[in-house]
Amino acid sequence: MQAEIIAVGTEILLGQVVDTNSAFIARELAEAGIEVYYHSLVGDNADRLTAVLERARSRSDLVIISGGLGPTKDDLTKQTVAQLLGVKLVEDEVAMAKIQHHFAVTGRKLTPNNRLQALYPAGSQSLKNTTGMAVGAFYQSPNGADMMLLPGPPSELEPMFLKEALPRLKQAYQRQEYLVSRVLRFFGIGESQLVTELGDLIANQTNPTIAPYAKETEVTLRLTASAENEAAGERLLDDMIATIKDRVGDYLYGYGDDNTLAQVVVNELIARHLTITAAESLTAGEFQSTLGDVPGVSAIFPGGFVTYANEAKHALLGVPEKTIAEQGVVSEATAKEMAERSRQKLDTDFGLSFTGVAGPDALEGQPAGTVWVGLAQRGQAPRAQLIRLAGTRAKIRERTVMTGLDWIRRILRDKK
Amino acid sequence: MQAEIIAVGTEILLGQVVDTNSAFIARELAEAGIEVYYHSLVGDNADRLTAVLERARSRSDLVIISGGLGPTKDDLTKQTVAQLLGVKLVEDEVAMAKIQHHFAVTGRKLTPNNRLQALYPAGSQSLKNTTGMAVGAFYQSPNGADMMLLPGPPSELEPMFLKEALPRLKQAYQRQEYLVSRVLRFFGIGESQLVTELGDLIANQTNPTIAPYAKETEVTLRLTASAENEAAGERLLDDMIATIKDRVGDYLYGYGDDNTLAQVVVNELIARHLTITAAESLTAGEFQSTLGDVPGVSAIFPGGFVTYANEAKHALLGVPEKTIAEQGVVSEATAKEMAERSRQKLDTDFGLSFTGVAGPDALEGQPAGTVWVGLAQRGQAPRAQLIRLAGTRAKIRERTVMTGLDWIRRILRDKK
Repeated sequence: MQAEIIAVGTEILLGQVVDTNSAFIARELAEAGIEVYYHSLVGDNADRLTAVLERARSRSDLVIISGGLGPTKDDLTKQTVAQLLGVKLVEDEVAMAKIQHHFAVTGRKLTPNNRLQALYPAGSQSLKNTTGMAVGAFYQSPNGADMMLLPGPPSELEPMFLKEALPRLKQAYQRQEYLVSRVLRFFGIGESQLVTELGDLIANQTNPTIAPYAKETEVTLRLTASAENEAAGERLLDDMIATIKDRVGDYLYGYGDDNTLAQVVVNELIARHLTITAAESLTAGEFQSTLGDVPGVSAIFPGGFVTYANEAKHALLGVPEKTIAEQGVVSEATAKEMAERSRQKLDTDFGLSFTGVAGPDALEGQPAGTVWVGLAQRGQAPRAQLIRLAGTRAKIRERTVMTGLDWIRRILRDKK
Repeated sequence: MQAEIIAVGTEILLGQVVDTNSAFIARELAEAGIEVYYHSLVGDNADRLTAVLERARSRSDLVIISGGLGPTKDDLTKQTVAQLLGVKLVEDEVAMAKIQHHFAVTGRKLTPNNRLQALYPAGSQSLKNTTGMAVGAFYQSPNGADMMLLPGPPSELEPMFLKEALPRLKQAYQRQEYLVSRVLRFFGIGESQLVTELGDLIANQTNPTIAPYAKETEVTLRLTASAENEAAGERLLDDMIATIKDRVGDYLYGYGDDNTLAQVVVNELIARHLTITAAESLTAGEFQSTLGDVPGVSAIFPGGFVTYANEAKHALLGVPEKTIAEQGVVSEATAKEMAERSRQKLDTDFGLSFTGVAGPDALEGQPAGTVWVGLAQRGQAPRAQLIRLAGTRAKIRERTVMTGLDWIRRILRDKK
């Protein structure tokens, strides 16, 4: 069972609009255990659309097409598909009644092209559009690939796909096995190192499969297991995750597509009633802003300091001018002072500090990417660690923030 | 001259990531007068990639491929292209030196797979990657389609395309007429309103063409003029821009692809030697962090305050507890106090403040999206404005930051 996805529309071909439909459909198909090997994108042009459709039919079992079902002259997807299938277009009476009602209510004139939206290729099942006018269609071919037609606007396509299309696809292509997947999130280890550490597992992957993916500051692994039932699939995942944790568990901060290191840290602080503040130099508020992204953070984060200039480090925090003058602003001593003094000022359990060279220029003879992260903890002497980062100003700052979050994560983990 | 675009990567094929590169490239090619008829997307699989590449070569003059240049086993784009072209991979010495330097600086081990990133197909021009490791390539074929290889991460692809690829494409496929374009950036006006205000200009556009594009918090217009020489093109642009400014110039904050409202404001403050600080509640440091993104900001930004909790507003800024108790924390009075007191504490020319409801929950009976922005100016009474925003927590915070920046922009503009 092999599907492919085609998006139709000149506005997406020219890049004026980004096609999000194909990714949406692909995710849902993967979930349902239907493999996708190709996406294509073509403009509102009957000849080129026909060529793309013919190729798709020749290499896939199911072709899902989005876009071009509307009422304008540009919209010619269903006419083209009907011609290719050698069938006529027929009218969906319910959809036609809805179109007539809409025009009656809004007092606009029903032009002939609007009737087009109620048509679908004969022999298909029509798919109801609850958020728009144009019906979709699912054509199961006795000889050749099946075809599915969906509207272009995501606000119409997504509900139609979930409510109308997916149940029909599952029925048509029911699989024996059950698919379960989990995403593992890592910080502090590069993609290449992770892939090296897990090299044999990745090389020999069959079930579960293991897919690494690198983002700007973190790496994820998606494990997908296929089994006869959900519990058996979960057991396969649990076993593989145990093996992975033995090797690189130190860098594993959490699970799930919709998760971040900040969420993990903030939620753990909330759970333990531990408060946090920060004094930020090169990050200029980005650490605190990242905490602020997490709903509920106000329970453990009263606020903090942005001390960009040396005078602000002295004026707002009371960092001795002597420390900065003698040790440098990018130094262990300054980082510790900033962390501990911010913690004391707001009487929190943790105080983080960040001082370093964001670039592009060097500072105090230290190159861009030289960063001290300070950490103060109630009842303990403050500490600081030196990190050396490369990349743009934005990347250096973002990685600095993540390093601070990860330090807290590790302390909380080890305190358990 | 006909180009097509191929995106490579299993994570985009499966829909885990939406491909924005193809749209970006398509827009830029349209701009440069190069027609695009097809986009395709294929996973990290050598056989299917080869099949897609062969078809593309047979029907197009230029094939632009993004993704799969990284260091992992999955990344096989350039090996596949080299094989198809019948050439070897050769090393870019500068890129190799950069990779070695990066690993030396960060103290990580240089594994053999990382060297892959410095390779490109022999006979190509290599394209420098200023924001990452993997080099790109432009292969001009004596017989058959030309090929261009670009990295997958948009943060690497976009600068490489603009700085390295586009000039080479323009040189290779030079047209008779000269194309010049300019991007106009707007904040505070929605796309639909902008398009309505400029409706007749957009409907009748021929030369220059006018392409609106909406982003999360701003709208851009790209004007492109075609003329026999650059000066004539610039004149056409100047005339159209004068007409546009007459209608919506109030919202126009700047020009250029690589520009932001923060850059415009920070650079104007630097030019006038005016300093700024802030006291942030709902934005939690995002305003200051946004200032911190701009190189050179230290000249006019000493630092500031994140006062998330009411106690922090009192303890760090001295906002009277009475004001907060009687007027509320989300109020004009509190916003003014925060702005003026932060300004006084750091003796700056401007002090901004942000207090409001980021959501998802209401606060003090006020719905999410209710925000007061305060502004203090040396020698003037502090002011505050109420804005009402909709959307997610992240959008509300981002729009709040932009509103603060735009307020400063307007004051500086009117002081001129």
